[in-house]
Formats: sequence, C-alpha cells, structure tokens
Amino acid sequence: MERVIWQQLDEAGQRRALARSELVADPALEGAVAAILAQVAQQGDAGLKALTEKFDGALPERWQLGPDAMAEAGARLAPELKAAIDQAIVHIGRFHQAQQPQALSMDVAEGIRCELRTEAIERVGLYVPGGSAPLISTVLMLALPARIAGCALKVMVTPPPINDAILYAAQQCGVDALYLIGGAQAVAALAYGTETVPRVDKIFGPGNRFVTEAKRQVSQQGTAIDMPAGPSEVLVLADDQADAAFVAADLLSQAEHGEDSQVILVTDSGCLADRVVAELEQQLAALPRAEIARAALAQSRVILAQDLDEACAISNAYAPEHLIVQTRTPRDLLPKLRAAGSVFLGPWTPESVGDYASGTNHVLPTYGAARTVSSLSLADFQRRFTVQELSRDGLAALNKTVVTLAQAEGLDAHANAVTLRMEKPA
Amino acid sequence: MERVIWQQLDEAGQRRALARSELVADPALEGAVAAILAQVAQQGDAGLKALTEKFDGALPERWQLGPDAMAEAGARLAPELKAAIDQAIVHIGRFHQAQQPQALSMDVAEGIRCELRTEAIERVGLYVPGGSAPLISTVLMLALPARIAGCALKVMVTPPPINDAILYAAQQCGVDALYLIGGAQAVAALAYGTETVPRVDKIFGPGNRFVTEAKRQVSQQGTAIDMPAGPSEVLVLADDQADAAFVAADLLSQAEHGEDSQVILVTDSGCLADRVVAELEQQLAALPRAEIARAALAQSRVILAQDLDEACAISNAYAPEHLIVQTRTPRDLLPKLRAAGSVFLGPWTPESVGDYASGTNHVLPTYGAARTVSSLSLADFQRRFTVQELSRDGLAALNKTVVTLAQAEGLDAHANAVTLRMEKPA
Repeated sequence: MERVIWQQLDEAGQRRALARSELVADPALEGAVAAILAQVAQQGDAGLKALTEKFDGALPERWQLGPDAMAEAGARLAPELKAAIDQAIVHIGRFHQAQQPQALSMDVAEGIRCELRTEAIERVGLYVPGGSAPLISTVLMLALPARIAGCALKVMVTPPPINDAILYAAQQCGVDALYLIGGAQAVAALAYGTETVPRVDKIFGPGNRFVTEAKRQVSQQGTAIDMPAGPSEVLVLADDQADAAFVAADLLSQAEHGEDSQVILVTDSGCLADRVVAELEQQLAALPRAEIARAALAQSRVILAQDLDEACAISNAYAPEHLIVQTRTPRDLLPKLRAAGSVFLGPWTPESVGDYASGTNHVLPTYGAARTVSSLSLADFQRRFTVQELSRDGLAALNKTVVTLAQAEGLDAHANAVTLRMEKPA
Repeated sequence: MERVIWQQLDEAGQRRALARSELVADPALEGAVAAILAQVAQQGDAGLKALTEKFDGALPERWQLGPDAMAEAGARLAPELKAAIDQAIVHIGRFHQAQQPQALSMDVAEGIRCELRTEAIERVGLYVPGGSAPLISTVLMLALPARIAGCALKVMVTPPPINDAILYAAQQCGVDALYLIGGAQAVAALAYGTETVPRVDKIFGPGNRFVTEAKRQVSQQGTAIDMPAGPSEVLVLADDQADAAFVAADLLSQAEHGEDSQVILVTDSGCLADRVVAELEQQLAALPRAEIARAALAQSRVILAQDLDEACAISNAYAPEHLIVQTRTPRDLLPKLRAAGSVFLGPWTPESVGDYASGTNHVLPTYGAARTVSSLSLADFQRRFTVQELSRDGLAALNKTVVTLAQAEGLDAHANAVTLRMEKPA
C-alpha cells in the first residue's frame, strides 16, 4: 500500500491520493451489449435461448422455477445454512420494515390539503450473479425489501447452476418466479419481456460488466435501475487505539472482492499504519483469495492525517461505499461524516456484518456516488407521489396568486382554469 | 381529439390509444451537446463565454449575481407579484418542511444497532429556463426544497434577460449565487465547474432539448440529475357529474404548454365527452396560445371506459404526470390510482394550483416514468445512509451466521474479520 502524508500533498496530489481507477468507455462492450439487447427485444425467448447457448451453454430444460421448486430446496438444505439465512432474514426484515414511510397529509392553509403518498413499484426484477460462488446474501438484500415494500411481482434471474441455498433464500423472501438466465440477455428479458419472462418496471442487483452495461443501456430506454455500479471499496478511519489486526482484517475482507477493489486507510497515527501493514502480510498468508487481495492492495493507500477532523474531511472527499470507524469514540465522529454508503462504528462492527446479517442493506453507492445516491432501502422499491384537494374557499384563497403567477409566465389557460371556476356560483 | 371506446379496442389498439409521441434518438443533437460539454470541460470560463456568444449573444458583463443584486430586485418588484410569490413560498415551504424524514435508529437484536440517517446533498445546481416567459415557479420548486433540505450551496443558472421576479424569488428561496447562462453550456459549467461557476453534485430543473440531452450525458459521467425529462401531460378522469367547462379548462392548461403536450380524457360518460369537446372549442377561441394548444389537442384522445374501475385501470396503464379526478366522490378512487406524478382531486383543484401554489412540487415524472420515479420532493435533495454499531455480544450473536454465509459464498476474509475478533479476549 502506498503511504502518503496528506498535509505534504498539493491539491493535485491529494486528488491523486483519492483517485479511483479510471472508468474507460468501452465501445466494443457497448456495441456487443446493444446487439444482445436488440436480439432479445426482437426474438423474445428464441433470442434468449440462442444467446444463453452462445455465452453460458444450453438453457436448462427447466429454466423457470416457481415457489414449489424453491420450497423443495428448503427441505434438502443443511440446517446450519438454513439457520444462518433465517437469522439474516430476521434482521434485514426488521430494519427494512422499520423504514415504512408515514403517509403525510396536511392542510397547508384552510381548504388546501396536500398529501404525500407511497405505493410499491409494481413489477421488479432482481439480478443475482452466478459464477464461482452463489451470492445468497444478494437474494436477501434485494428480495426482502421488495416483499416488505409490497411489490406485486418479484422476478429473480440468475445464471445456472442454481443451488439449494439460493432457492431457499428466494422462497423465504417471497420471490414469485425465478429464471435460470444471466448476463446482458437476462437484463434484456426483464426490460422488454419475452413469451416466458415478464417485463418489469425496475431492475436491481449487481453483475459483471455485461450486466452493468446492459442495465445502463436499458435505463436510458425507460426501465429504471437501482443505482450505477462500480468496483467495491472501503475506507477505514482509525486512530492509535485501533486494533491493527481488526483493521487489517477489514481491509482484506474488502480487497478479496476483486482486483479492482479499493481499500484506503486514513489514520492520524503513523504507528498504527505500520502495525496494520505488518498485520496485512501475516493475514494474507492464510487467505485462499490472497492473490486477488494482493492485486487490490497494490492500488490502495495509507493516508496520514494531522488529526481526526482532517481524517473525516478526507473521508468525505472520497465518499466511500463502506466506511469503518475504529477510534476511541467513533460515534462522536458521526456528525462530521457526511458522505458514505454505510458506516460501521467501533471495534466490534466489521464490514462483513453489514454484508450479511446486521440488518442494513449491502447494495451501496460506489465510486463517489455516495455524495448524491442513497444506500439501497425500502424507498427504492416504492414511489412517492403527491395529492392535493382544495375546497371552493381554498381555491378562492389561491385565486389571485395563481392568476398573477400564470400571467407573469404568459400561461393564460393556467389562469383561466382558476378564474372560470371562480365565476361559477358557489 | 380522437375518440375511442376502450372495450372495442384490441390489445394493440389499447396500446396505441395510450401511446406517447415516440422519442427518436438524435445523433446530431447528441454530438453537438457532447462537443459543448467537452469545450466547457477543457476551456472553463473561456469556453463558456465563447459558447454563450455563439448561441445566446454576448455574456452580460455582470453574469454572476450575488444575494445583494437579488435583494435590490425585491425593492423594485410590483407588490401584487411579490405577494403572489410570498404566498406560494409559504405553501410550498410548509409542505416540503413536513417531509423532513425522521431519523431511524433501532436494535434489530440485542447489541446490534442499525440506523438510517439523512444528510443534505452538499452542492446543488438549479436550471431555470429562460425564453418567452420567466419561469418564476421553477425557482420556487427547486430552490425552496434545496434550502429546506439544508443543501450548503445552491447555485442557479438561467439565461438572460433576467427579471426582477426571478431575482426576488431566488433571494427569498436562499439561492447562494446566480449565473446568467443557459443551454448545454450552463449544464456543463455546473457539472465540471469553471473558474467562476462552482461544480455541483446534482443538477435539477427543466430545459429545452439541449439542456435535457446535456443533463442526460453528464448523468452518465457521474453528476446526478433530478429525473429524466419528457413532454408534459395530463389525464383527466371524469364521470357524468363533472363540469365540462372545468374539464376543458384543465385540458387546455396542459395543452398550452407545448405542441408536444399530451392530454387525455378518460370518462365513463359519452355525454360528458361531447360536452367537453364543445367547451374546448369555445375556450380555445379566447386563448392567446390557441395555436399551440390546438396542435397538442390534435394528438390527444378521449377514451370511453365501461365504468370508473376500468377508467382507473386505464389511468394506471398510462401513468400520467398529472392526474385530475373529477367524479362524484374522487377520494374513493385514490386507493385504485397507483401510478401518477401528482393527483388533483375534485372540482376545485385545477392542475394550475399545483403548478404554482398549493404546496406540492410541480417537477413530476413524465412519459410513464411515474411507475418508478417519485415526484420531486425533499428526499431528492438529500441522501440516506445506514450506520451500524455492534457490541461484542452483538457480534458474538452474529458470528456463526456471518461465517456460515461468507464460507458459502467463498469469501474467507469476510469470515476472518469476525472470527479474528471473537478470538480476542473480551
């Protein structure tokens, strides 16, 4: 890990110290994905099957699984894994249930009632990546909020092979139908619909660069997506009291995600920085995914801050996806921490608890998007809309204001819609 | 207005009856906007000045206005207009203030605390279109929620000439700085920053197709935007009790916005439909913007439904930006109306009250986006993020679950971050 002292850097140096790997536009990828989307849009199931054969091997004969197939899996699952999924569901469920918005209804003045109402998004598509290991936690983080929000149709897609843990999790979270498809073609099926796969209003979930690009493209065509995706990242903010072994373990649990993961340690203690670097080497030796973690660490940094105030400012400038605070009194820093996807306070709160089971959602804004984008929550599966209802007197009280403003904007029919009503005998 | 009977249409006919004007990709526009963005990114103020000269005439010498200049305008403004702005501010302020989220903090289990916190987005850019008439209401709808949310920097851009009403509104709503620039180059200045214009995190506001395309492009580069923009639209849902003159006035107040505006009347009463069409002709005769309204009406439709249940289903399928309900008991239909930007209930609630002064926001999802996108609200100027804090016992209670799930996903460092802590003596 490269080591820099914040105060010794000029502005460009500070920018470099917090730089993420550049996102280079890839026209070949964009073109390939556009072609895949077009094929599914035009050919439906036939296109989906042909593309699956081309990229993933043959489509399984039973590629659509309903609640029955999911329920069977539960009976076969190891009790330990079942219990783990069950506990995670309880915590994630409680925290997301508590996010149900209160309906707002108020009279802003006599006879002028304004309301903010919430409805669930009707049809949602949940993408769960396949690959080397099944992402059970992704099922929980997407399907549970969808169920709690009240989404009428929850469709999940995931490339084969499917395993029992994923099926059990999907069933417990109320997934209505599961399709064994993946890649850009699965995103296309959700966005456009096919004879078999229903079209959805919004698509959630992580994926490889084909999936990410497909989500980006369909989002430009009218299907909503959860948030822009980028490489995963963590910033650990620590003082000299932090346990170096804990800090190193947290940095590594992020670094093992992928070679493009970024981990940053910001500390006001050079001594802690030394101890963390030594710990990293020791822990790496025992790690199966050490090679991936080493590659990620090679792009990562230790930043020495003057004090914790400066450390908070550095964290805000970076706006990390995950922010771990291991200082004497971590909660005291919270009001100063303005931009992060999810914050982990204190020595007993490793990032991995948020990844799986503390109750918070692990779908978080990356690549600095935490400045404007919220961590995934119940609200992302819902939409807010306003309602207003005026009495005749309420409208009379607004008459002059609306007519004056409408005329100032040159919109006479707007004014007329009010004056015409006022001319009507009460 | 074309008139169709819903039950007599086949599926394709029903789709056509609710079709919006096709959005055709315009590569020439995309290229022109990309060039403008690049010029501002590279040349800063110089590029901004050159582009403004090219498209809008010379940049005014005083193109940056602070609170002092805004305050001066208030002293000059006609009292009637000032009073109208003031009343609108009171109502919009009250309704948006009431949207402040409650912080959520809960123990999902003993020793496992989860929180949902809200922070204002730090720097916001507000685009207010110029053109034939100054859009005072746009200033209110963007700047007031930004101030109430607590955004630290609120930058407004609008092409010259500026008028006193806009300046007064900006000052009353707490705009920090105002720049007399417009078009794609103004969006670029906000997205990238120049020597004079500060870079912002998120850009709000309507504009012409250059502005809309510029917002789309910068949103792909990491600057957030409020929502995708499309032509304005209204759907009026009425029964035989509705006042035909009111309905016609509401249809026209939408139609006068632009030739691409879409207005739809859905009713279970053929008799009302006849009366509305007759009223339209009569009211059009007196309207300054009749030509625009006529063009919009030419693309619009009267849809005859079997009953009000079917009328609600039609409205949901269309997902209108504005939905006006003029029936015997409009509130009874509310639970059935699942997708709209803003709903106007009853005879005394014309759309124009929401455009100006009822208190709701007039920035609303168009083009069917109401299925997934919320009407603009305080939440759009804020971001939510999660916090978790575990005690040692809380982590111990999660230990087995996190380790089991992490191992099932093949992420050993994730498991290690927990087990290593648990090995530490308490």
